[in-house]
Amino acid sequence: MIKIGIVGGTGYTGVELLRLLIMHPQAEITVITSRQEAGRAVADIFPNLRGHIDLNFSEPDTEVLASCDVVFFATPHGVAQASVPELLDRNVKVIDLSADFRIRSVPLWEQWYGQTHACPERIGDAVYGLPEVNREHIRKAQLIACPGCYPTSVLLGFLPLLERGLIDPGDLVANAASGVSGAGRQASIPNLLAESSDNFKAYGVGGHRHLPEIEQGLADIVGSAVSLTFVPHLLPIIRGIHSTLYANLINENAGVDVQAVFEERYQDEPFVDVLPPGEHPQTRSVRGSNMVRIAVARPQGRNKVVVMVAEDNLVKGASGQAVQNMNIVMGLPETLGLDAPALLP
Amino acid sequence: MIKIGIVGGTGYTGVELLRLLIMHPQAEITVITSRQEAGRAVADIFPNLRGHIDLNFSEPDTEVLASCDVVFFATPHGVAQASVPELLDRNVKVIDLSADFRIRSVPLWEQWYGQTHACPERIGDAVYGLPEVNREHIRKAQLIACPGCYPTSVLLGFLPLLERGLIDPGDLVANAASGVSGAGRQASIPNLLAESSDNFKAYGVGGHRHLPEIEQGLADIVGSAVSLTFVPHLLPIIRGIHSTLYANLINENAGVDVQAVFEERYQDEPFVDVLPPGEHPQTRSVRGSNMVRIAVARPQGRNKVVVMVAEDNLVKGASGQAVQNMNIVMGLPETLGLDAPALLP
Amino acid sequence: MIKIGIVGGTGYTGVELLRLLIMHPQAEITVITSRQEAGRAVADIFPNLRGHIDLNFSEPDTEVLASCDVVFFATPHGVAQASVPELLDRNVKVIDLSADFRIRSVPLWEQWYGQTHACPERIGDAVYGLPEVNREHIRKAQLIACPGCYPTSVLLGFLPLLERGLIDPGDLVANAASGVSGAGRQASIPNLLAESSDNFKAYGVGGHRHLPEIEQGLADIVGSAVSLTFVPHLLPIIRGIHSTLYANLINENAGVDVQAVFEERYQDEPFVDVLPPGEHPQTRSVRGSNMVRIAVARPQGRNKVVVMVAEDNLVKGASGQAVQNMNIVMGLPETLGLDAPALLP
Amino acid sequence: MIKIGIVGGTGYTGVELLRLLIMHPQAEITVITSRQEAGRAVADIFPNLRGHIDLNFSEPDTEVLASCDVVFFATPHGVAQASVPELLDRNVKVIDLSADFRIRSVPLWEQWYGQTHACPERIGDAVYGLPEVNREHIRKAQLIACPGCYPTSVLLGFLPLLERGLIDPGDLVANAASGVSGAGRQASIPNLLAESSDNFKAYGVGGHRHLPEIEQGLADIVGSAVSLTFVPHLLPIIRGIHSTLYANLINENAGVDVQAVFEERYQDEPFVDVLPPGEHPQTRSVRGSNMVRIAVARPQGRNKVVVMVAEDNLVKGASGQAVQNMNIVMGLPETLGLDAPALLP
Repeated sequence: MIKIGIVGGTGYTGVELLRLLIMHPQAEITVITSRQEAGRAVADIFPNLRGHIDLNFSEPDTEVLASCDVVFFATPHGVAQASVPELLDRNVKVIDLSADFRIRSVPLWEQWYGQTHACPERIGDAVYGLPEVNREHIRKAQLIACPGCYPTSVLLGFLPLLERGLIDPGDLVANAASGVSGAGRQASIPNLLAESSDNFKAYGVGGHRHLPEIEQGLADIVGSAVSLTFVPHLLPIIRGIHSTLYANLINENAGVDVQAVFEERYQDEPFVDVLPPGEHPQTRSVRGSNMVRIAVARPQGRNKVVVMVAEDNLVKGASGQAVQNMNIVMGLPETLGLDAPALLP
Repeated sequence: MIKIGIVGGTGYTGVELLRLLIMHPQAEITVITSRQEAGRAVADIFPNLRGHIDLNFSEPDTEVLASCDVVFFATPHGVAQASVPELLDRNVKVIDLSADFRIRSVPLWEQWYGQTHACPERIGDAVYGLPEVNREHIRKAQLIACPGCYPTSVLLGFLPLLERGLIDPGDLVANAASGVSGAGRQASIPNLLAESSDNFKAYGVGGHRHLPEIEQGLADIVGSAVSLTFVPHLLPIIRGIHSTLYANLINENAGVDVQAVFEERYQDEPFVDVLPPGEHPQTRSVRGSNMVRIAVARPQGRNKVVVMVAEDNLVKGASGQAVQNMNIVMGLPETLGLDAPALLP
Repeated sequence: MIKIGIVGGTGYTGVELLRLLIMHPQAEITVITSRQEAGRAVADIFPNLRGHIDLNFSEPDTEVLASCDVVFFATPHGVAQASVPELLDRNVKVIDLSADFRIRSVPLWEQWYGQTHACPERIGDAVYGLPEVNREHIRKAQLIACPGCYPTSVLLGFLPLLERGLIDPGDLVANAASGVSGAGRQASIPNLLAESSDNFKAYGVGGHRHLPEIEQGLADIVGSAVSLTFVPHLLPIIRGIHSTLYANLINENAGVDVQAVFEERYQDEPFVDVLPPGEHPQTRSVRGSNMVRIAVARPQGRNKVVVMVAEDNLVKGASGQAVQNMNIVMGLPETLGLDAPALLP
Repeated sequence: MIKIGIVGGTGYTGVELLRLLIMHPQAEITVITSRQEAGRAVADIFPNLRGHIDLNFSEPDTEVLASCDVVFFATPHGVAQASVPELLDRNVKVIDLSADFRIRSVPLWEQWYGQTHACPERIGDAVYGLPEVNREHIRKAQLIACPGCYPTSVLLGFLPLLERGLIDPGDLVANAASGVSGAGRQASIPNLLAESSDNFKAYGVGGHRHLPEIEQGLADIVGSAVSLTFVPHLLPIIRGIHSTLYANLINENAGVDVQAVFEERYQDEPFVDVLPPGEHPQTRSVRGSNMVRIAVARPQGRNKVVVMVAEDNLVKGASGQAVQNMNIVMGLPETLGLDAPALLP
């Protein structure tokens, strides 16, 4: 059994991590911390877990965390930075679900997150935890920076086209939409049911923190700078991200079979499902599951490629991908504990 | 034109009052106050009102309010108490949407609302603003205490049966369910879409503040004490209250035609619609409207009477009823500005 | 491995049965039939199952079904009747999710279901599959009639009180509310999102088919006739049933500790969770799970007992309970394959 | 008073037309037809209209319709074609909400709608009823083809940029999302609440019937052919369309102030509201209203322009725009009966 610690487990990625690890045959949750809820039973905050877990939240304690094999950080950005170095020094594997170690450029990170990075010397050690791109690096990593929810869907959607140089990397559009769990479990008026249900809107059109992360990931694939227009929207659903991606085929590639490109690229990936031509992925088809479903089309046979990607933002977009990374880094089968079908209807 | 002031207009009853008064041909909104949002444009907070109203929220100012014909209080309980006496002294009609003047017993009010009443001497002057019961008193009132959202539906549902002494007042059950707008426009985790959508639960089974108000209203009808079991539930909808009421016919009334009782009682009421036998009222059929729709049944022909009542908690349950009261007290046609059909679908 | 056949798998209980059996370590789905969709891949209709199941729907074939250890009927009422006798004769265990064998009185069944029963001679062999009441009979059954979704919640809610004779069985009220998946996967205008979302209503107040089933189950507990008023409502959610039950304590029992009564009755039940005093069960806390959560209260300390019950109508209310019955009748651990936590948020 | 006939009033555009005309001070609804529901009270199908309208649906009768001043067709495509010529001959103004007369090219219409056009000789007489573009032609029209719901939002969003030649018309993207009322009041499995709530997906990526209509409208503005990629999505909301539009500024226009372009273009339009920089339109801000709200941005100051447009698909996208056209063609104030604020929350 793998001894697991979770730092900051009172948000939605926290409860989802608990749900997945409870079903994982090799996971033993040793400790879960929360300064704010210390002493309170986990099941008291998350009523779905009554009868499934007996832990109480506790104050963070480095000794306890250091005795774990793996520590997950399910904290807001800025928290993991402070604690990660000591855990790494004590040979704990750290899987960070926050944004702290995702962006390699310290100035860029500081510009978008509006604070000084507390641990810039460790950023270089972090592996960006997108297994479909970085599986071999993840295997040997000690610090894994899990991708953001939007970046996971956008990167997996553009990946097959960019790797082969089929599209113009200077004119990419990602029109994405997320369920409200993406905003976290925080009291706020705009995310009240009375405000956000029966409603739809874009937000952050001027600039969303996932933009530099996505552009970095795209540039890594291409090997040079890219230009992405990224417009996120708020969906009146609990879970799910759907990204609709637009790119222009480079002229000499007009004859390419984009369906085949996607099927070949992802044929061995356990968590990427390429749909048959003409189908459209639905967020409910991945609700509660670590699967990403993708479809690709060329409407009217023109040179504009449209890619549609559906994921559960709390699973493949956060906690499920974190467990997938844990499986890889601990040498377990990659799908262990992650193979339950989505909940539908 | 009637000069109108609104105190505390940043909540849902506030915006609904604005929407209704903007459409009202005799209303002129002079001032709307909010300490917290003073200086901010109303349309900035309520994007549906852009282009319909030019006012900014302002600090409460007694001189300005005293120059109005009617002042509405759309404030949390405890606020109106402090300001009402001066306005009454200066001959302003006050229509209070809060709970401050609904309950005649000061100790009972203080027990349920957990604070000392600041203005007990005016409670006796207040008229409980349920026109179907108190129309003539409202006409002459200077201070009107608008009923709560749940009480409106429960009182109108039991009224015809209790007035005629048909049911046992010692064993009444009100199983009610409200949309989340009833909880107000306040940041809170339980009312986030991610928490309250795709969900249903009872709440406050141990005791809800509307219980003493309803029991007072029922006792007024009967002329003696009643016993009500009141269980509210939270619906994953924005607007709407549905109350399902249960009572036992007194034995000698087993032959009564309950459908006729309801139709006769409400035949002249402009805002109470008794449905044909076998139909069920739906909250969407009153969405945005001041109408209450009621159906009555005796399942299996037994002595248990079931009454179903649907209202829009923000209209007939709050701001619409307040405008109805304004129409009555100002000598206008009772339905003025309140006759738009509900929005469906 | 247990060889399993499913008759009629294109509805919501069908897909839920598939989801649960896919995760069940001892289940091998051999055949799934549908006259209408014969030849079509299961995953084509249920996109959550892509990659999890390779079967196609097939025409019903008695030989194939007879080679299974267990056959589930997830069909509309009237279908199982015709096929069950031959399967029973060939020693297949039959678990029927439909209403065909739930009611012991043939005339009562025929009155409520509006057709002649095709197999009255087998009704007496059927065991009503509510394990909390009938576990020992289920163990030895060959034909199990799984309870309806509403009956499961109402029976489990009244059971502890009725068994001890604490309440008046002549005046029971069940105010229940169900998500729309309870209406099945059938094209219909009233269940469109545009009709049923942002809405709430009662339905079937004149008489719902689950009434005679519930009254039979309650009478079995009491040992004599009962009188239940049952009013179902339609919730704008996908899954979940919440029943709010009302009963009068018999006078000499006024001193009883109802909380203790429930805790004692259900202390050894793996799928019934009695909440601490003052809590309210939520449907989301059992979404996708076989757990039932129950709370009991006596508002204002009066003699009216209020019981609140939350279940997932497709799991404990249908397919989960069917698998629980399969585990019992096949001698497996009762919770096998049914222990995943609910999906929240 | 204007005598009005409505053909085919049992769908969502029908009930919305009724709701708007009931509130319209100059409208008198004379007849409403439906073959299927002939004889049934309108309020029987649309419970929000109980007490607001006394009409029954009737069989279509040309004599009765010919006695009206205006006849609205709220029918599926293919129906108006057959009846329009006779009404035009008898000097009735016809406002067609269907697609029958929107597309000027008969072959193009027949290709996308899969049938032979029954009345090609009248297509040339029809005026495309988008007042912001065609107001003067509408004033003199006898046959008005109301724009589709998606086309209204996409055309109004690109209009200011295309009119001034600021963007490349050869690379336009419209990523649009609609509430389910856009699919009409028809029994269908995919639009059940259990299928479409808590879900999001694209649909019709291979080609949607609104594509040729939008491309025709865009080409009319530009004066030459355009190329649009149009991807519609299905939102789990009742009403509302949100279009997010992407276009590339032509290089020499990099310095343009797009905010000013939009504000100038729409400053005199009563039903187009340009939001301040940095804001995002929300569908709920136009729920039940004829207003369109638009915002424009240039993320990161790059040459990609993003336009966001919110409308109520049943109002400005259908019945409200139809009434706006009626006001124009009948010489009434354009906003008459259309100035109620949106319903929020």
